[in-house]
Amino acid sequence: MRLYLIRHGKAVSAGLATSDAERPLSPEGREATERVAKRLRGLGVQWGLILTSPLVRARQTAEILRGAGLAPSVEEAGELGPGGELAAWLPFLASWRKEGRGDLAAVGHLPNLALWAESLAWGEEKERIVLKPGGILGLELPESGSIPGNCSLFWVTSPKLLP
Amino acid sequence: MRLYLIRHGKAVSAGLATSDAERPLSPEGREATERVAKRLRGLGVQWGLILTSPLVRARQTAEILRGAGLAPSVEEAGELGPGGELAAWLPFLASWRKEGRGDLAAVGHLPNLALWAESLAWGEEKERIVLKPGGILGLELPESGSIPGNCSLFWVTSPKLLP
Repeated sequence: MRLYLIRHGKAVSAGLATSDAERPLSPEGREATERVAKRLRGLGVQWGLILTSPLVRARQTAEILRGAGLAPSVEEAGELGPGGELAAWLPFLASWRKEGRGDLAAVGHLPNLALWAESLAWGEEKERIVLKPGGILGLELPESGSIPGNCSLFWVTSPKLLP
Repeated sequence: MRLYLIRHGKAVSAGLATSDAERPLSPEGREATERVAKRLRGLGVQWGLILTSPLVRARQTAEILRGAGLAPSVEEAGELGPGGELAAWLPFLASWRKEGRGDLAAVGHLPNLALWAESLAWGEEKERIVLKPGGILGLELPESGSIPGNCSLFWVTSPKLLP
Protein backbone atom coordinates (compact mmCIF):
# COMPACT_ATOMS: atom_id res chain seq x y z
CA MET A 1 0.00 0.00 0.00
CA ARG A 2 1.04 3.55 -0.64
CA LEU A 3 0.89 6.43 1.81
CA TYR A 4 0.86 10.02 0.54
CA LEU A 5 1.88 12.67 3.08
CA ILE A 6 0.72 16.06 1.83
CA ARG A 7 1.53 19.45 3.32
CA HIS A 8 -1.35 21.96 3.34
CA GLY A 9 -1.25 24.71 0.72
CA LYS A 10 0.02 28.22 1.42
CA ALA A 11 -2.16 29.99 4.00
CA VAL A 12 -2.78 33.66 4.86
CA SER A 13 -0.85 35.14 7.78
CA ALA A 14 -2.39 35.14 11.22
CA GLY A 15 -4.12 38.44 11.94
CA LEU A 16 -5.78 40.08 14.92
CA ALA A 17 -9.00 38.22 14.24
CA THR A 18 -7.48 34.94 13.06
CA SER A 19 -5.69 32.40 15.25
CA ASP A 20 -3.08 30.11 13.70
CA ALA A 21 -5.54 27.22 13.72
CA GLU A 22 -8.09 29.25 11.77
CA ARG A 23 -5.81 30.57 9.01
CA PRO A 24 -7.38 29.69 5.64
CA LEU A 25 -5.55 28.95 2.39
CA SER A 26 -4.44 32.04 0.49
CA PRO A 27 -5.76 32.48 -3.07
CA GLU A 28 -2.32 31.35 -4.29
CA GLY A 29 -2.38 28.33 -1.98
CA ARG A 30 -5.84 27.36 -3.14
CA GLU A 31 -4.84 27.67 -6.80
CA ALA A 32 -1.66 25.59 -6.35
CA THR A 33 -3.58 22.92 -4.41
CA GLU A 34 -6.22 22.71 -7.14
CA ARG A 35 -3.49 22.29 -9.72
CA VAL A 36 -1.84 19.52 -7.68
CA ALA A 37 -5.21 17.78 -7.26
CA LYS A 38 -5.78 17.86 -11.01
CA ARG A 39 -2.29 16.42 -11.65
CA LEU A 40 -2.82 13.62 -9.14
CA ARG A 41 -6.13 12.81 -10.78
CA GLY A 42 -4.43 12.72 -14.20
CA LEU A 43 -1.83 10.31 -12.81
CA GLY A 44 -4.58 7.92 -11.74
CA VAL A 45 -3.94 8.37 -8.01
CA GLN A 46 -6.86 7.13 -5.90
CA TRP A 47 -7.12 6.93 -2.11
CA GLY A 48 -9.47 5.00 0.13
CA LEU A 49 -9.53 7.98 2.50
CA ILE A 50 -8.01 11.40 3.10
CA LEU A 51 -7.08 12.04 6.71
CA THR A 52 -6.45 15.62 7.74
CA SER A 53 -5.15 17.72 10.57
CA PRO A 54 -8.04 19.58 12.24
CA LEU A 55 -6.56 23.00 11.31
CA VAL A 56 -8.46 25.03 8.71
CA ARG A 57 -5.66 25.25 6.13
CA ALA A 58 -5.25 21.45 6.21
CA ARG A 59 -8.98 20.73 6.09
CA GLN A 60 -9.37 23.06 3.11
CA THR A 61 -6.49 21.30 1.34
CA ALA A 62 -8.08 17.91 2.03
CA GLU A 63 -11.46 19.10 0.73
CA ILE A 64 -9.90 20.32 -2.53
CA LEU A 65 -8.29 16.88 -3.00
CA ARG A 66 -11.56 15.11 -2.24
CA GLY A 67 -13.47 17.48 -4.52
CA ALA A 68 -11.17 16.48 -7.38
CA GLY A 69 -12.36 12.88 -6.95
CA LEU A 70 -9.17 11.54 -5.35
CA ALA A 71 -11.01 9.89 -2.43
CA PRO A 72 -14.60 9.33 -1.35
CA SER A 73 -14.24 11.06 2.02
CA VAL A 74 -12.19 13.14 4.47
CA GLU A 75 -11.74 12.45 8.17
CA GLU A 76 -10.00 14.54 10.82
CA ALA A 77 -7.19 12.99 12.86
CA GLY A 78 -5.81 14.90 15.83
CA GLU A 79 -2.43 13.17 15.45
CA LEU A 80 -1.94 15.03 12.16
CA GLY A 81 -2.18 18.39 13.92
CA PRO A 82 0.85 20.37 15.14
CA GLY A 83 2.81 18.41 17.72
CA GLY A 84 1.21 15.11 16.71
CA GLU A 85 3.31 11.98 17.24
CA LEU A 86 3.88 9.29 14.62
CA ALA A 87 3.83 6.66 17.36
CA ALA A 88 0.27 7.68 18.26
CA TRP A 89 -0.84 7.41 14.61
CA LEU A 90 0.90 4.13 13.76
CA PRO A 91 -1.86 1.83 15.12
CA PHE A 92 -4.33 3.44 12.69
CA LEU A 93 -1.89 3.05 9.79
CA ALA A 94 -1.18 -0.60 10.67
CA SER A 95 -4.86 -1.51 10.88
CA TRP A 96 -5.60 0.35 7.63
CA ARG A 97 -2.91 -1.71 5.91
CA LYS A 98 -4.17 -4.95 7.50
CA GLU A 99 -7.72 -4.31 6.31
CA GLY A 100 -6.50 -3.73 2.74
CA ARG A 101 -8.48 -0.52 2.34
CA GLY A 102 -6.32 0.88 -0.47
CA ASP A 103 -3.87 3.77 -0.60
CA LEU A 104 -4.12 6.52 1.99
CA ALA A 105 -3.51 10.28 2.05
CA ALA A 106 -2.70 12.33 5.15
CA VAL A 107 -2.74 16.14 5.07
CA GLY A 108 -0.76 17.92 7.76
CA HIS A 109 2.09 20.22 8.68
CA LEU A 110 5.81 20.70 8.99
CA PRO A 111 7.96 19.59 10.62
CA ASN A 112 5.86 16.50 11.37
CA LEU A 113 5.24 15.11 7.89
CA ALA A 114 8.86 15.31 6.74
CA LEU A 115 10.07 13.80 10.01
CA TRP A 116 7.45 11.05 9.84
CA ALA A 117 8.59 10.15 6.33
CA GLU A 118 12.16 9.82 7.60
CA SER A 119 11.02 7.63 10.50
CA LEU A 120 8.93 5.47 8.17
CA ALA A 121 11.76 4.98 5.66
CA TRP A 122 14.96 5.19 7.73
CA GLY A 123 13.81 4.73 11.30
CA GLU A 124 15.26 8.05 12.42
CA GLU A 125 14.65 11.77 12.00
CA LYS A 126 17.37 14.05 10.61
CA GLU A 127 15.36 16.82 8.90
CA ARG A 128 16.83 16.14 5.48
CA ILE A 129 13.62 16.17 3.40
CA VAL A 130 12.33 19.42 1.88
CA LEU A 131 8.50 19.63 1.83
CA LYS A 132 7.02 22.82 0.39
CA PRO A 133 3.40 23.97 0.95
CA GLY A 134 1.20 21.72 -1.19
CA GLY A 135 4.12 19.31 -1.57
CA ILE A 136 3.83 15.51 -1.57
CA LEU A 137 5.83 12.65 -0.04
CA GLY A 138 5.02 9.18 -1.39
CA LEU A 139 5.88 6.06 0.63
CA GLU A 140 5.42 2.39 -0.20
CA LEU A 141 4.71 0.34 2.93
CA PRO A 142 6.04 -3.19 3.43
CA GLU A 143 3.30 -5.78 2.95
CA SER A 144 3.59 -6.97 6.53
CA GLY A 145 5.72 -6.54 9.63
CA SER A 146 7.03 -3.40 11.28
CA ILE A 147 6.28 -0.22 9.32
CA PRO A 148 8.81 2.32 10.73
CA GLY A 149 12.21 1.94 9.10
CA ASN A 150 10.83 -0.34 6.38
CA CYS A 151 9.01 1.97 3.93
CA SER A 152 10.42 3.08 0.57
CA LEU A 153 10.32 6.70 -0.57
CA PHE A 154 9.17 6.89 -4.19
CA TRP A 155 8.09 10.52 -4.44
CA VAL A 156 9.13 13.91 -3.13
CA THR A 157 7.75 16.88 -5.00
CA SER A 158 6.74 20.50 -4.58
CA PRO A 159 3.79 21.89 -6.55
CA LYS A 160 6.29 23.79 -8.71
CA LEU A 161 8.08 20.54 -9.68
CA LEU A 162 4.76 18.95 -10.68
CA PRO A 163 4.14 21.05 -13.79
CA MET B 1 24.08 24.45 -5.24
CA ARG B 2 21.82 21.72 -6.45
CA LEU B 3 22.85 18.25 -7.57
CA TYR B 4 20.56 16.21 -9.81
CA LEU B 5 21.21 12.46 -9.83
CA ILE B 6 19.54 10.95 -12.87
CA ARG B 7 19.17 7.28 -13.69
CA HIS B 8 19.60 6.36 -17.38
CA GLY B 9 16.44 5.62 -19.35
CA LYS B 10 15.19 2.12 -20.06
CA ALA B 11 17.64 0.14 -22.20
CA VAL B 12 17.32 -2.87 -24.47
CA SER B 13 18.27 -6.28 -23.06
CA ALA B 14 21.77 -7.59 -23.54
CA GLY B 15 21.98 -9.89 -26.57
CA LEU B 16 24.55 -12.16 -28.11
CA ALA B 17 26.21 -9.23 -29.86
CA THR B 18 25.71 -6.63 -27.12
CA SER B 19 27.55 -6.50 -23.81
CA ASP B 20 25.89 -4.85 -20.81
CA ALA B 21 28.08 -1.76 -21.25
CA GLU B 22 26.96 -1.37 -24.86
CA ARG B 23 23.21 -1.69 -24.35
CA PRO B 24 21.49 1.35 -25.91
CA LEU B 25 18.28 3.03 -24.76
CA SER B 26 15.13 1.29 -25.96
CA PRO B 27 12.68 3.33 -28.07
CA GLU B 28 10.50 3.62 -24.95
CA GLY B 29 13.49 4.72 -22.82
CA ARG B 30 14.48 7.31 -25.39
CA GLU B 31 10.93 8.69 -25.56
CA ALA B 32 10.58 8.91 -21.76
CA THR B 33 13.99 10.59 -21.45
CA GLU B 34 13.07 13.15 -24.11
CA ARG B 35 9.86 13.89 -22.24
CA VAL B 36 11.74 14.32 -18.95
CA ALA B 37 14.26 16.63 -20.66
CA LYS B 38 11.45 18.78 -22.01
CA ARG B 39 9.83 18.99 -18.56
CA LEU B 40 13.11 19.97 -16.91
CA ARG B 41 13.58 22.64 -19.53
CA GLY B 42 10.06 23.94 -18.87
CA LEU B 43 10.86 24.13 -15.15
CA GLY B 44 13.85 26.36 -15.87
CA VAL B 45 16.40 23.78 -14.74
CA GLN B 46 19.92 24.62 -15.97
CA TRP B 47 23.18 22.85 -15.22
CA GLY B 48 26.79 23.95 -15.59
CA LEU B 49 27.68 20.41 -16.72
CA ILE B 50 26.24 16.93 -17.17
CA LEU B 51 28.52 14.16 -15.94
CA THR B 52 27.79 10.66 -17.13
CA SER B 53 28.74 7.07 -16.55
CA PRO B 54 30.77 5.76 -19.53
CA LEU B 55 28.11 3.13 -20.38
CA VAL B 56 26.16 3.65 -23.60
CA ARG B 57 22.69 3.89 -22.01
CA ALA B 58 23.91 6.59 -19.61
CA ARG B 59 25.81 8.53 -22.31
CA GLN B 60 22.74 8.49 -24.54
CA THR B 61 20.58 9.77 -21.64
CA ALA B 62 23.09 12.57 -20.96
CA GLU B 63 23.17 13.55 -24.64
CA ILE B 64 19.37 13.81 -24.76
CA LEU B 65 19.46 16.12 -21.72
CA ARG B 66 22.22 18.23 -23.27
CA GLY B 67 20.41 18.32 -26.58
CA ALA B 68 17.37 19.81 -24.82
CA GLY B 69 19.55 22.75 -23.76
CA LEU B 70 19.87 21.79 -20.09
CA ALA B 71 23.67 22.12 -20.04
CA PRO B 72 26.42 23.25 -22.42
CA SER B 73 28.35 19.99 -22.29
CA VAL B 74 28.65 16.36 -21.20
CA GLU B 75 31.71 14.73 -19.61
CA GLU B 76 32.32 11.10 -18.73
CA ALA B 77 33.21 10.17 -15.15
CA GLY B 78 34.32 6.63 -14.40
CA GLU B 79 33.06 6.95 -10.80
CA LEU B 80 29.50 7.12 -12.15
CA GLY B 81 29.85 3.70 -13.76
CA PRO B 82 28.73 0.45 -12.09
CA GLY B 83 30.61 -0.13 -8.84
CA GLY B 84 31.72 3.50 -8.59
CA GLU B 85 32.30 4.84 -5.10
CA LEU B 86 30.86 8.11 -3.78
CA ALA B 87 34.07 8.66 -1.78
CA ALA B 88 36.06 8.67 -5.02
CA TRP B 89 33.72 11.23 -6.61
CA LEU B 90 33.39 13.59 -3.62
CA PRO B 91 36.58 15.58 -4.32
CA PHE B 92 35.19 16.55 -7.74
CA LEU B 93 31.85 17.53 -6.20
CA ALA B 94 33.51 19.59 -3.47
CA SER B 95 35.71 21.49 -5.91
CA TRP B 96 32.76 22.08 -8.25
CA ARG B 97 30.86 23.63 -5.35
CA LYS B 98 33.86 25.69 -4.28
CA GLU B 99 34.30 27.09 -7.77
CA GLY B 100 30.63 28.14 -7.90
CA ARG B 101 30.08 26.60 -11.32
CA GLY B 102 26.31 26.26 -10.94
CA ASP B 103 24.05 23.28 -10.54
CA LEU B 104 25.28 19.87 -11.64
CA ALA B 105 23.70 16.75 -13.14
CA ALA B 106 25.13 13.23 -12.89
CA VAL B 107 23.72 10.38 -15.00
CA GLY B 108 24.36 6.88 -13.74
CA HIS B 109 22.98 3.61 -12.45
CA LEU B 110 21.33 1.74 -9.62
CA PRO B 111 22.07 0.95 -6.91
CA ASN B 112 24.75 3.67 -6.78
CA LEU B 113 22.71 6.79 -7.33
CA ALA B 114 20.02 5.99 -4.76
CA LEU B 115 22.66 4.95 -2.21
CA TRP B 116 24.72 8.07 -2.91
CA ALA B 117 21.66 10.25 -2.29
CA GLU B 118 21.16 8.55 1.08
CA SER B 119 24.82 9.05 1.98
CA LEU B 120 24.67 12.70 0.93
CA ALA B 121 21.50 13.43 2.92
CA TRP B 122 21.63 11.02 5.87
CA GLY B 123 25.22 9.86 5.99
CA GLU B 124 24.28 6.19 5.65
CA GLU B 125 22.88 3.79 3.05
CA LYS B 126 19.70 1.84 3.71
CA GLU B 127 18.25 1.35 0.21
CA ARG B 128 15.03 3.18 0.99
CA ILE B 129 14.80 5.42 -2.10
CA VAL B 130 13.03 4.22 -5.25
CA LEU B 131 14.67 5.44 -8.47
CA LYS B 132 13.05 4.30 -11.73
CA PRO B 133 14.75 4.43 -15.16
CA GLY B 134 14.82 8.08 -16.21
CA GLY B 135 14.02 9.08 -12.62
CA ILE B 136 15.53 12.09 -10.82
CA LEU B 137 16.87 12.74 -7.31
CA GLY B 138 17.37 16.41 -6.40
CA LEU B 139 19.73 17.39 -3.59
CA GLU B 140 20.58 20.81 -2.17
CA LEU B 141 24.18 20.95 -0.94
CA PRO B 142 25.23 22.89 2.15
CA GLU B 143 27.02 26.12 1.23
CA SER B 144 30.22 24.99 2.91
CA GLY B 145 31.59 22.24 5.11
CA SER B 146 31.21 18.49 4.84
CA ILE B 147 28.84 17.38 2.08
CA PRO B 148 27.94 13.79 3.10
CA GLY B 149 25.17 13.74 5.69
CA ASN B 150 24.39 17.43 5.18
CA CYS B 151 22.43 17.64 1.91
CA SER B 152 18.64 18.08 1.69
CA LEU B 153 16.48 15.96 -0.58
CA PHE B 154 14.02 18.18 -2.43
CA TRP B 155 13.00 15.93 -5.32
CA VAL B 156 12.38 12.26 -6.01
CA THR B 157 10.44 11.49 -9.14
CA SER B 158 9.97 8.86 -11.80
CA PRO B 159 9.22 9.91 -15.41
CA LYS B 160 5.64 8.72 -14.87
CA LEU B 161 5.18 11.09 -11.91
CA LEU B 162 6.47 14.03 -13.98
CA PRO B 163 3.46 14.33 -16.29
